[in-house]
Amino acid sequence: MHELEVKRVIGLMSGTSCDSIDAGLCEVYPDLSVKLISGINYKYPEHIRAKIFQLFSGNVSVKDICQMNFAIGHCFANACNILIGEFGKPDFIASHGQTIYHYPFDEKIDNIGLKSTFQIGESAVIAQETGCNVYSNFREADIAAGGEGAPLVCFADEKWFKNALVQNIGGISNVTVVSDDNPTFGFDTGLGNIMIDYCMNKFYNMPYDKDGEVAKSGNICESWLDALCQDEYYFRTPPKSTGREYFSVKYIENALKFAPKKTEDIITTATALTAKTIVSAYERFIFPDINVKEVIVGGGGAYNPALMNFLRMYLPKHISLKTHEDYGISNNFKEVMAFALLGYCSYYGIPNNIPSCTGASKRVVLGKLANC
Amino acid sequence: MHELEVKRVIGLMSGTSCDSIDAGLCEVYPDLSVKLISGINYKYPEHIRAKIFQLFSGNVSVKDICQMNFAIGHCFANACNILIGEFGKPDFIASHGQTIYHYPFDEKIDNIGLKSTFQIGESAVIAQETGCNVYSNFREADIAAGGEGAPLVCFADEKWFKNALVQNIGGISNVTVVSDDNPTFGFDTGLGNIMIDYCMNKFYNMPYDKDGEVAKSGNICESWLDALCQDEYYFRTPPKSTGREYFSVKYIENALKFAPKKTEDIITTATALTAKTIVSAYERFIFPDINVKEVIVGGGGAYNPALMNFLRMYLPKHISLKTHEDYGISNNFKEVMAFALLGYCSYYGIPNNIPSCTGASKRVVLGKLANC
Repeated sequence: MHELEVKRVIGLMSGTSCDSIDAGLCEVYPDLSVKLISGINYKYPEHIRAKIFQLFSGNVSVKDICQMNFAIGHCFANACNILIGEFGKPDFIASHGQTIYHYPFDEKIDNIGLKSTFQIGESAVIAQETGCNVYSNFREADIAAGGEGAPLVCFADEKWFKNALVQNIGGISNVTVVSDDNPTFGFDTGLGNIMIDYCMNKFYNMPYDKDGEVAKSGNICESWLDALCQDEYYFRTPPKSTGREYFSVKYIENALKFAPKKTEDIITTATALTAKTIVSAYERFIFPDINVKEVIVGGGGAYNPALMNFLRMYLPKHISLKTHEDYGISNNFKEVMAFALLGYCSYYGIPNNIPSCTGASKRVVLGKLANC
Repeated sequence: MHELEVKRVIGLMSGTSCDSIDAGLCEVYPDLSVKLISGINYKYPEHIRAKIFQLFSGNVSVKDICQMNFAIGHCFANACNILIGEFGKPDFIASHGQTIYHYPFDEKIDNIGLKSTFQIGESAVIAQETGCNVYSNFREADIAAGGEGAPLVCFADEKWFKNALVQNIGGISNVTVVSDDNPTFGFDTGLGNIMIDYCMNKFYNMPYDKDGEVAKSGNICESWLDALCQDEYYFRTPPKSTGREYFSVKYIENALKFAPKKTEDIITTATALTAKTIVSAYERFIFPDINVKEVIVGGGGAYNPALMNFLRMYLPKHISLKTHEDYGISNNFKEVMAFALLGYCSYYGIPNNIPSCTGASKRVVLGKLANC
């Protein structure tokens, strides 16, 4: 192993919300801390974004997936080249890719395991079009080692925070429990912004609830909220992970059959649902065993004051509620910073999964290398 | 770059015929010659093979592809572990994977290229289950560099042969033109065994025409043969590549609408079609420019005496017809030997595509590394 040095790494991520590619030029330091130099949101071209949602719907051909893997690779490369145009080439790139399926279940056929995950955004395209080496496909090796392939950001949370619940609210919500007294663990708490965004699009023709304005204008429909909180996912014991294949359009449309009439009440209740299921997850799986003083929120949800208010309302009073920004870490670009760190570890051969988070049988070096 | 050393490499390949995984333990030498130590055919479990054919049909979900990538990775790992059980661990593994789509066309959407290729058989699974590093996904970087991502075996042909047409007859047929006077080039000539095998299965419930016995028992239907030779693929100027997405079940079933009545005549004519289109490709694209003395056949087709007889019949008399075995290279395991060589070059950072074969704009190092 080489001696660790400071590296400039572009982290790339496109989450389940799928509104844009997040690209962040970072400096990663030998103590595994990360500084964001510049981050951008690169919007997917319209037809590409529509195609990705087709992929989520599962209603596609092998040809579509083949083509979209490369097309999204070109988009990721374009995002990088904007940063490279301004700041020059990084030492390498670390790309999470775009998840289009995640199947963390121990099913078999012919005694052959089907547990799997699927991220697209061809790394060879990114490498050729940027002239930089690319680490990508971080989840596969964790699944191959018996884990769920998620959550991976725990690794960064463990390095960057102490004694806190680190709560990301993207399309899906996930928490990392960092404690002096227990091994770090984490899991997907359930819905993040997926349902809110879907309903904002359906009822208001807007991509999301800016500043939580709509949620603030409505009332919680308690009976609907209670019913939605009964979903079996919330009762499963961690480790567990989920995604759009579970909290799907079908799931949401099914839920909407029992929704209140006023559209603002739907948005308010969907927002409360995310907050309440996050806190329920703490009450079921964290508070009984671990003494927690602080919740630190990141991701798009941290910019939704209605969601933050609901979190404050449901959380026990003695627990303080903060955002990543309070610790100098971008809410928007935390995940790209985390993948920059994961790529840094791939480069140096440092194991970068956390078995207590993913359920893997051992620590492994995640990430595949595509040369430029 | 390190100084080149002899390496033991397991090459892995599953072709368009998709009958089994070919796995070969090889020694690769610094002069880029390769010796096969032991090769095996690992049969796909029945339900997995059926699922792969579903993938070829395009009639699948994203979930299916996600799962099959990992399932096939397990199968590839099992094949390796048989060799490892007998011979110990190699220095690393080089896996071609299972192609499920190949789209070498310059189509665009939102000005984003869709040219692409898709091989599955998760390398992280192979790496974790064998304890060996794995190079895989060789075609992507060539496409990213503007090529067709095929043919790749040309690289090996150029190292191993001199002044010959090196003709592989697998599911699809491809030729490499190795000449002292011209840069090496190659292309897919068209059908190999796909149509013969499909018809043997349909009419005789057998996986292939063993020793060409059925083809020997029938007659060529010249009118049908002529009609099939008019397919536009055969007239396209190289570089060109093709696969099951073009010569599909639909293509074959369509062709069969005009077939002769006797099933043995169908097999005979399909066999002649492969031979005739191979020689036509030579006449159109090779003989006018290049002085050829020898054709060297490999792949499953080399074991079909009826096919070899037709090749002899269509080839000009002054050109000699040989098989790879005549040069000490296994017909069956030539492709795994070639991928062992490609992986060796990935390891040492030696560019291993041939732009004159694939149409790429430059030489690049193909293959992605998954660590064990």
